[in-house]
Amino acid sequence: METWFREQYRDTEKGFKVLGALHQSVSQFQTMDVLETAHYGRLLVLDGTVQTTEGDEFIYHELIAHIPLLAHPAPKQVLVIGGGDGGTVREVLKHPGVERVVLCEIDGDVIDVCRKYLPSISCALDEPRVEIVVGDGVAYVEQHPDTFDVILNDSTDPAGPGVGLFTEGFYQNVKRALKKDGIFSAQTESPFADPEGVQKIYTLLRKVFPITQAYVAPIPTYPAGYWSWSFCSETLKPMAHVREAEARRLEKDTRYYNWEVHQAVWALPNFVKALVSTESPASTVC
Amino acid sequence: METWFREQYRDTEKGFKVLGALHQSVSQFQTMDVLETAHYGRLLVLDGTVQTTEGDEFIYHELIAHIPLLAHPAPKQVLVIGGGDGGTVREVLKHPGVERVVLCEIDGDVIDVCRKYLPSISCALDEPRVEIVVGDGVAYVEQHPDTFDVILNDSTDPAGPGVGLFTEGFYQNVKRALKKDGIFSAQTESPFADPEGVQKIYTLLRKVFPITQAYVAPIPTYPAGYWSWSFCSETLKPMAHVREAEARRLEKDTRYYNWEVHQAVWALPNFVKALVSTESPASTVC
Repeated sequence: METWFREQYRDTEKGFKVLGALHQSVSQFQTMDVLETAHYGRLLVLDGTVQTTEGDEFIYHELIAHIPLLAHPAPKQVLVIGGGDGGTVREVLKHPGVERVVLCEIDGDVIDVCRKYLPSISCALDEPRVEIVVGDGVAYVEQHPDTFDVILNDSTDPAGPGVGLFTEGFYQNVKRALKKDGIFSAQTESPFADPEGVQKIYTLLRKVFPITQAYVAPIPTYPAGYWSWSFCSETLKPMAHVREAEARRLEKDTRYYNWEVHQAVWALPNFVKALVSTESPASTVC
Repeated sequence: METWFREQYRDTEKGFKVLGALHQSVSQFQTMDVLETAHYGRLLVLDGTVQTTEGDEFIYHELIAHIPLLAHPAPKQVLVIGGGDGGTVREVLKHPGVERVVLCEIDGDVIDVCRKYLPSISCALDEPRVEIVVGDGVAYVEQHPDTFDVILNDSTDPAGPGVGLFTEGFYQNVKRALKKDGIFSAQTESPFADPEGVQKIYTLLRKVFPITQAYVAPIPTYPAGYWSWSFCSETLKPMAHVREAEARRLEKDTRYYNWEVHQAVWALPNFVKALVSTESPASTVC
């Protein structure tokens, strides 16, 4: 008998042939499953929604980290909100100039489970530059003004424990938690699967950050297989100070990211432009 | 009771909630289904595989047509192989300089069914510039040397009726069917869902066409939601003679394509580069 895990989203479904269930539990915040699948390796599933897979996690984690970090002239202090699997921290640590990465994950069980079952993703969590805070990202940014060069919102969808990470109040506190020339990047959902949700997020981001640009890439295991991230700053445009030489060094250690990709992710299809911007991205990224 | 149509591919699955089956038949070549779905509108399904949907067809059809047509200095004669749904022909006809589009589809039933059930896709098939040939594309290109400025292989997967459209012999005949400075573009499968298949196609294409570049985009309803196309020519590099002014005119009438996208589709992630090329795309597209 074959076993399949299926995730439904708006009258569509993604299915994964399951070889075994490695872990099942209920934390204070959500249900947690780790499944061994035939095609994508291990899946982390929270509240029935795929969060990351061994097979395609590299795309998401490389893009949420390297696009903003390489846009900053010299990022030293980085905050990752959510991201308990450790994949974003792993990519942030590929930047030798980063002195400290704070991982603020609300659900400590996620960290524990990922340490145990997803070592290729969580492998960097024990590095000395990492500081792990089990707590609410909403409160954390409020309590740490003028602290970080780059803040990354590696959250779940805007539902359940992640809902507070998609509000104007949170974005205002993020802005205050950033140092001068700080950058905030966040996962901002699928322009194809949830166009209204994407539009709503960008409307809020634009209220807070004068520079707000979306970037896009495929993520096979997420709804519609197509995802977006935001680049927000008060002062820095996405490509104005980008460190190309460092990008070309870094691309030797990535599977999706490279310097051509870095330049290309800003090219938004017409239907995405209509959701996130009234301006042409070409005129504003440099 | 809910009804779902599910397509399996290599231990993964895509599912669509079905509101009704509009058509079911078996042609000389394949099974044919048209399903009304809740999220993607109508689906054309051949041999159990989604070929096109009302919801996301625009991405595929715009990219297979506009990238090569705008790279050619003055395309007048265009051949579309496969593509019985008419979507590629619809996009080709947006180029006012095109004098004739030959649609060579092996299965006349596909054309009939799409005319009836997918009018938003097949709508241009009756335009005077269109010549419909129901026949084998393999034989057609062999019999028409030195005839076309652009040939588009809008085929099914390399299995069933489409298998002959992925061979070195076919590519050799395509090259002969092209006029001087001709361009051949083809759908070349998913780098994520079928990496070995993609690698095989590009190995063959490179044997025949000295200029061979891949380009990529998301297609939510195809395996892994991520697709590739080839740009092949004996003489023309993809961006060397591209007509930007025409691209900017055309982008007012597209939903995915625009001039920024045109420049960005060549940026291949590292894992795709490894499959299709030994060179950096950045060094060869201009």
